[in-house]
Amino acid sequence: MDSQQFREAATATIDEIITYFDTLGSRGVVSAVEPGYLRKLLPAEAPQDGEPWADIQKDIEAKIMPGITHWSHPGFHAFFPCATSYPSILGELYSAALSGACFNWICSPAVTELETVVLDWLAKLLGLPACFLSTGPTRGGGVIQGSASEAILTAMVAARDKYLRETLPFPYPLPSSTSSPATDSSDTDTETANAREEAIARKRARMVALGTTLTHSSARKAAQILGVRFRAVRVSARDGYALTAPALAAALAECRAQGLEPFFLAATLGTTDVCSVDDFAGVAEALDADYEAAAAAGVVFSGGGDGFGGRHGDGDGAGDGQRTTTNNGCAAVAGAQGQSRPGEVWVHVDAAYAGAALVCPEVQARVRIGLIERFHSFDMNMHKWLLVNFDASCFFVRDRDWLVRALGVNQAVYGNKASDGGLVTDYREWQIPLGRRFRSLKIWFVLRSYGVKGLQEYIRRTIALGEQFAASLRAREDLFEIVAGPSFALTVFRLAARSEGETLEERNALTRALYEKVNATGKIWLTSTVLDGRFAIRLMTGVRTTEREHVEAAVKTLVEVAEEVMKG
Amino acid sequence: MDSQQFREAATATIDEIITYFDTLGSRGVVSAVEPGYLRKLLPAEAPQDGEPWADIQKDIEAKIMPGITHWSHPGFHAFFPCATSYPSILGELYSAALSGACFNWICSPAVTELETVVLDWLAKLLGLPACFLSTGPTRGGGVIQGSASEAILTAMVAARDKYLRETLPFPYPLPSSTSSPATDSSDTDTETANAREEAIARKRARMVALGTTLTHSSARKAAQILGVRFRAVRVSARDGYALTAPALAAALAECRAQGLEPFFLAATLGTTDVCSVDDFAGVAEALDADYEAAAAAGVVFSGGGDGFGGRHGDGDGAGDGQRTTTNNGCAAVAGAQGQSRPGEVWVHVDAAYAGAALVCPEVQARVRIGLIERFHSFDMNMHKWLLVNFDASCFFVRDRDWLVRALGVNQAVYGNKASDGGLVTDYREWQIPLGRRFRSLKIWFVLRSYGVKGLQEYIRRTIALGEQFAASLRAREDLFEIVAGPSFALTVFRLAARSEGETLEERNALTRALYEKVNATGKIWLTSTVLDGRFAIRLMTGVRTTEREHVEAAVKTLVEVAEEVMKG
Repeated sequence: MDSQQFREAATATIDEIITYFDTLGSRGVVSAVEPGYLRKLLPAEAPQDGEPWADIQKDIEAKIMPGITHWSHPGFHAFFPCATSYPSILGELYSAALSGACFNWICSPAVTELETVVLDWLAKLLGLPACFLSTGPTRGGGVIQGSASEAILTAMVAARDKYLRETLPFPYPLPSSTSSPATDSSDTDTETANAREEAIARKRARMVALGTTLTHSSARKAAQILGVRFRAVRVSARDGYALTAPALAAALAECRAQGLEPFFLAATLGTTDVCSVDDFAGVAEALDADYEAAAAAGVVFSGGGDGFGGRHGDGDGAGDGQRTTTNNGCAAVAGAQGQSRPGEVWVHVDAAYAGAALVCPEVQARVRIGLIERFHSFDMNMHKWLLVNFDASCFFVRDRDWLVRALGVNQAVYGNKASDGGLVTDYREWQIPLGRRFRSLKIWFVLRSYGVKGLQEYIRRTIALGEQFAASLRAREDLFEIVAGPSFALTVFRLAARSEGETLEERNALTRALYEKVNATGKIWLTSTVLDGRFAIRLMTGVRTTEREHVEAAVKTLVEVAEEVMKG
Repeated sequence: MDSQQFREAATATIDEIITYFDTLGSRGVVSAVEPGYLRKLLPAEAPQDGEPWADIQKDIEAKIMPGITHWSHPGFHAFFPCATSYPSILGELYSAALSGACFNWICSPAVTELETVVLDWLAKLLGLPACFLSTGPTRGGGVIQGSASEAILTAMVAARDKYLRETLPFPYPLPSSTSSPATDSSDTDTETANAREEAIARKRARMVALGTTLTHSSARKAAQILGVRFRAVRVSARDGYALTAPALAAALAECRAQGLEPFFLAATLGTTDVCSVDDFAGVAEALDADYEAAAAAGVVFSGGGDGFGGRHGDGDGAGDGQRTTTNNGCAAVAGAQGQSRPGEVWVHVDAAYAGAALVCPEVQARVRIGLIERFHSFDMNMHKWLLVNFDASCFFVRDRDWLVRALGVNQAVYGNKASDGGLVTDYREWQIPLGRRFRSLKIWFVLRSYGVKGLQEYIRRTIALGEQFAASLRAREDLFEIVAGPSFALTVFRLAARSEGETLEERNALTRALYEKVNATGKIWLTSTVLDGRFAIRLMTGVRTTEREHVEAAVKTLVEVAEEVMKG
């Protein structure tokens, strides 16, 4: 395909995309194909000779579209949104043209630097404490990850390594772990190194990550990947499905009693099931009390590690600082990098979906976002509810060295003057993969095209749609019971009880019938969950194209079907 | 931005991209900006009001381009290529418009099904054994990962869990690891469960992953993430930097002697430093001998696990099959899923770059790709040398259940009829993240636009350019010594010795001077490595835009600077 052919092909593609969005509402929301539909339509092998673009393009409508579930459809009320917008599409277009692996600064300085700048913009826009800014007092900063799952895994790896570094009685990681590939690590397999590996393995075996029963499954998956234990603290309707100080305190005490060492907690701002928000103040309180009690009971947090932790070789010791608070309100400590008590539990705030609403100051105030200065990392997905298309998970950390020490692996071929000089950021050391796309472009375009006011208006509008929906349900208490919300444009509900004697099973079955019949209409798409055994339906109103009339239509459908189900 | 504004903006963007590619050779290869250049050019915060597209777009050339290193520049000879092509850009364009999280089949059946089909196309095109096809005899298949690092991490997680499942004397994973989030895992914290967690932790502590001193750093990083030991087997120039049977046998014996349990080996087809290829037959031989010796020595591989391993509940036991070979040449075993000996070392073949050359039958024959039927997983990046832009790491596994059992985590909100019925693929269970982009579109477009012949022609052309370059160096033995290659369009070389008495340090310093001076010209970009203490320069000729004349120009520059360095 030469330049001229590309111009024609791209113009035709742009036309098709515009038509797609302009007529999206007329399609069914969810694909209705049967499993295996596509293999029947395609050849068994790649063609020997190249095909003209026109032949390829016509297969989009003919073969691909029937298998698409339309996440930007106004009737998409399932899961959470997965955004797209015109400015974001343009960002992907430039990014594809400027394709590069971009693991180091020199691989394209603009890729690294724009990312640092726009994530600082975003941190300010979300009202995050200054310690999460790259220019902040604690060497914090943001990095774009592919998904919230990758962010929580990255956080957990950093947390585990920080904990080991701070609590082992010898340097961690061991030298062999950071040696260059040109050096056989068996060179260092002395008896000492082996004994230390054993001690690390023993300690790892006692470490436990915590979440709640409503923490996203990615936390459990991350623990599975790390090979550490995971404990879910039960949260209940009584507490609005939020993690509270007493519940966390009990779980921590249970772990300590079993000789386990808690090192990580996933707190959530907007759980997937009900959009609940954990009690940040309570979490901090419970962790403080646990730390003091454990220290008093003789649990040794501070090892003799000399800070041997990577190529920076700055030799700062763990546990050499006293906790202080700087005048910008960020928890910080005297000393280069010791902004936390040695061995304290790392708190990661998963705000994958609801974090987007922090663009509104009233939401920042309501969730008291300033409290997260006590915590260690924060993640939100612009690709869910903030108009940037997948993938753009924005992950912030209070001290970037925590990432670099855990994830920085050297290889001779990646050496270069800028990196070796230590003046630049190499984002490969902040993430699981090596290479990375130019994802900050689409964020930059969206922030500039919409402006802060445009984003606030969008978030407020979709939150109001959620309230409109919940009000419609409340107006029909004969048919519906709200189980949770509306919270961040999400309402969770079930069928009202038909009689006082109705069992949980009966009510679940009827609610499931409602759910399945409504989805079968093809007009809207809902997802479901199970809360303390109660089957419930989730309806989310965050999609960009959803308007008041669509919510009214959804209510109408729900009422019609609910009346039918209740009768029959 | 409305439809009409998008049409104008996209048209202007397409124009700019075409101009970019048409004039790319006239730019410097590597960005020459100073660290921090971009922050000075941008506001400190996101704008309050939206900006028109024209204002945004003009910043691309003014502010972004100076910070871009051009990976598609004909003078880009560094690292490996990171591809882009017009058909691939169109794939990204559609993918952005159809944005969805696509973690389950129902989230867009076309996203899952096209991926399965095009990865089968690719497996056939690369000559992979049939066991890596989704339609093959062993329930294999391919999945698109973001990078080779994610692929090797995924493989290592699956390998570790497979090993534990097969060698522990009780079911693995423990029930609590797969319970739904609605169930507090502490419900199952009986004494038995705790004792089992301890046993798992003890075994994990003995497990070791192996690679070589030229294995990509992502293997070591994956081991660091998993928290398992890593040993690098030394490979040497004498063996062409390939892992051989004797070297692997010695490393395995050393591990066994230390009471360690090898569970994973990263073998490489095309190492980053020199594009060497490990001896697959030798690897298989050494592993067979190790397995038999360990079994004879009483190492217990087969536990009493009952195959309790996930939601499939198929109850197949580990170690219940005998090794046989099916008539299609794939190693397989009687029984539903037991295609491997219990507790055997998982071999992952990292062909991230050089795997692309397998589109040529002569390369398939030369590396004897059929031998990998003995191994467990294979990965190659179409985004390096096969014209698909980043990211498209194509990861194949011989039995997809190995992935699902290790990475499948349930959450009520993701339940749906298609998934629960077990008839479809949910790729979230084959990878680290939950959500995923529609990445198969760009692969489909590239395979169809170029056709098999077009891809073969491109690979052969760039391999020939590597041979042309190496021949030019050989013609100047007074100036250059080839250290390795040409192999897969990569040549590694250093300055010739000026005198017999020249020390390694002197020669390294002169070669480094050559390297730095050539890069300083801005005409081409090279990277370097260190092999057994010898500093060497890598020159790769795989970029799509590189032609004979560019290689000639590169040689001319190298000769001029080398003569200068040799004199001075």
